[in-house]
Amino acid sequence: MHQQKKVFKEVTIDLGKVEKELEKFLRVDDPILAQTCIYLLKAGGKRMRPGFTLLSGKFFDYNFEKLLPVAMALEIIHMATLVHDDVVDASLTRRGRPTLSAAWGNSVSVATGDFLFAKALEMIVKIDNIEVSKELAKVCIQMGRGEIQQIKSSYDVDQDFKQYLYRIKRKTALLIGLCCKLGAMVSRADKRQIWILSTYGHCLGIAFQIVDDILDITADSKILGKPIGGDIRQGIMTLPMIYALKYSPDQSRIRELLHKKNKTEGEVEEAIYLIKKSGGIEKSRKIVDLYIEKGIKNLKELPDIPSRKALIELARFVAERSY
Amino acid sequence: MHQQKKVFKEVTIDLGKVEKELEKFLRVDDPILAQTCIYLLKAGGKRMRPGFTLLSGKFFDYNFEKLLPVAMALEIIHMATLVHDDVVDASLTRRGRPTLSAAWGNSVSVATGDFLFAKALEMIVKIDNIEVSKELAKVCIQMGRGEIQQIKSSYDVDQDFKQYLYRIKRKTALLIGLCCKLGAMVSRADKRQIWILSTYGHCLGIAFQIVDDILDITADSKILGKPIGGDIRQGIMTLPMIYALKYSPDQSRIRELLHKKNKTEGEVEEAIYLIKKSGGIEKSRKIVDLYIEKGIKNLKELPDIPSRKALIELARFVAERSY
Repeated sequence: MHQQKKVFKEVTIDLGKVEKELEKFLRVDDPILAQTCIYLLKAGGKRMRPGFTLLSGKFFDYNFEKLLPVAMALEIIHMATLVHDDVVDASLTRRGRPTLSAAWGNSVSVATGDFLFAKALEMIVKIDNIEVSKELAKVCIQMGRGEIQQIKSSYDVDQDFKQYLYRIKRKTALLIGLCCKLGAMVSRADKRQIWILSTYGHCLGIAFQIVDDILDITADSKILGKPIGGDIRQGIMTLPMIYALKYSPDQSRIRELLHKKNKTEGEVEEAIYLIKKSGGIEKSRKIVDLYIEKGIKNLKELPDIPSRKALIELARFVAERSY
Repeated sequence: MHQQKKVFKEVTIDLGKVEKELEKFLRVDDPILAQTCIYLLKAGGKRMRPGFTLLSGKFFDYNFEKLLPVAMALEIIHMATLVHDDVVDASLTRRGRPTLSAAWGNSVSVATGDFLFAKALEMIVKIDNIEVSKELAKVCIQMGRGEIQQIKSSYDVDQDFKQYLYRIKRKTALLIGLCCKLGAMVSRADKRQIWILSTYGHCLGIAFQIVDDILDITADSKILGKPIGGDIRQGIMTLPMIYALKYSPDQSRIRELLHKKNKTEGEVEEAIYLIKKSGGIEKSRKIVDLYIEKGIKNLKELPDIPSRKALIELARFVAERSY
């Protein structure tokens, strides 16, 4: 986390303000919602999304008052989708702690997510910028479609790279792309500049998700904050698995293992071993590098300010992180 | 249903258009979402909410083009909350058919509800009326709070009338109140007129929910479209139960029954018998009548047009319906 904090140093003070405003905005006198919202806020989210919005704004007419509600809406939408995703995927841990659904049950999680969506709507109304609202609505719809895709594709060992991309685009990349896009938009960037930052965020989001999926197989679970192999257990097909299914000499065994519901711990370990052995990790890392390169390629057209360096470092950090 | 159709006759043609536009707007090329959305649309919802919006508009400067997106947003929000409520309450049937969560599972239901919320957001953005958006956001937040309250209060035999009202206000009344309010607002009603229709909708919503709760105990399950006693089974404390718990000589047995999870069918039947015997139904009906009276009281200040008669008939229909 330390390294990540460093790359956001251009906007550290303002990110602190975003955090305070989020706490204030999500304060509610209902005892359960108050607790679940605090639980989510204190879960140590990286606030990467507001970070991207603010950094993107730095290149142009940076106005924190205008960026703040946009950054907040984006983070709240992110929080809401995480909560519902954990219900959909039946995930038990996130960031080293039980998920809201594990700790409070699915019903409370569904309701908390709905409350957060409603708060995001309140914030969007406050922003009162039709272009911003349109972009947010569009991405929310696509995220909803991604959620369905995630369910449909679970335990589906016949998925290909294209289907995987469709899914992680909606799960992660569109929102991070939008964070950068809106940061630029409300800071009065021109069309080309908005496109450069939007593309950066999008590519970074894809890379980020692939790394996430790699770490689920390769990481140290203590550093990762959750047991590894979660995707294997939950039947979420990730890029290393897709490559292993395609190229490994053990593909029929891998197929059998990944398709099976309720795997034993031994089977999860065997799957991890076979995926690692298949070269799927290395192939996935190459895709990460391609997206990182594509994402930062056009940044050089933007003013050479510290935020540009920060965005490039962030991209490298995303590619190389171990948690 | 026949009688209800009759009271909406002032707006039948336009309601048909709302239906068509809903079908068009919720068409999506994802096969699962396409199916779940059609399933929900064909489930025979009464489209009461768009009906209220249109009828309320009739008193003033009725402009269907302006009312349509508002009516659609309201109905879609309603659909989304129904889907998530059925997850939260683990309901198995609605309107004579399996709920989406029973038929497709909780994950698909959560995702479908999220997709619908996102579509509602898209529609709200299209409306592009800050006052309308503010009202919708406010009510969505309150509905989220109601959802949590529903969970918290389940199997809680110590609830009182006030807590019950808090809950059904958020579950039902606020949205119906808003349907009338927005119908009047976008048709350029004045403040007093908006208040009259908003109050009408709110009171009708309260009455509607109490009748729903009564019917869950007294109805013929074939006419109702779902087995009776559902609230008792799911631990949802309703007004007849609250009165029975307070006034019945069998209150300790009722307490025991209602508090128990996983009741046998015999116990559900016994609870129904004891609640009926307690006089809780009659007491609840009196509250329904009070709200109906309060709701229609000020309608006489509005122009004497067929829609006024329709609203009054609708109120009586809500009070007297058997399904």
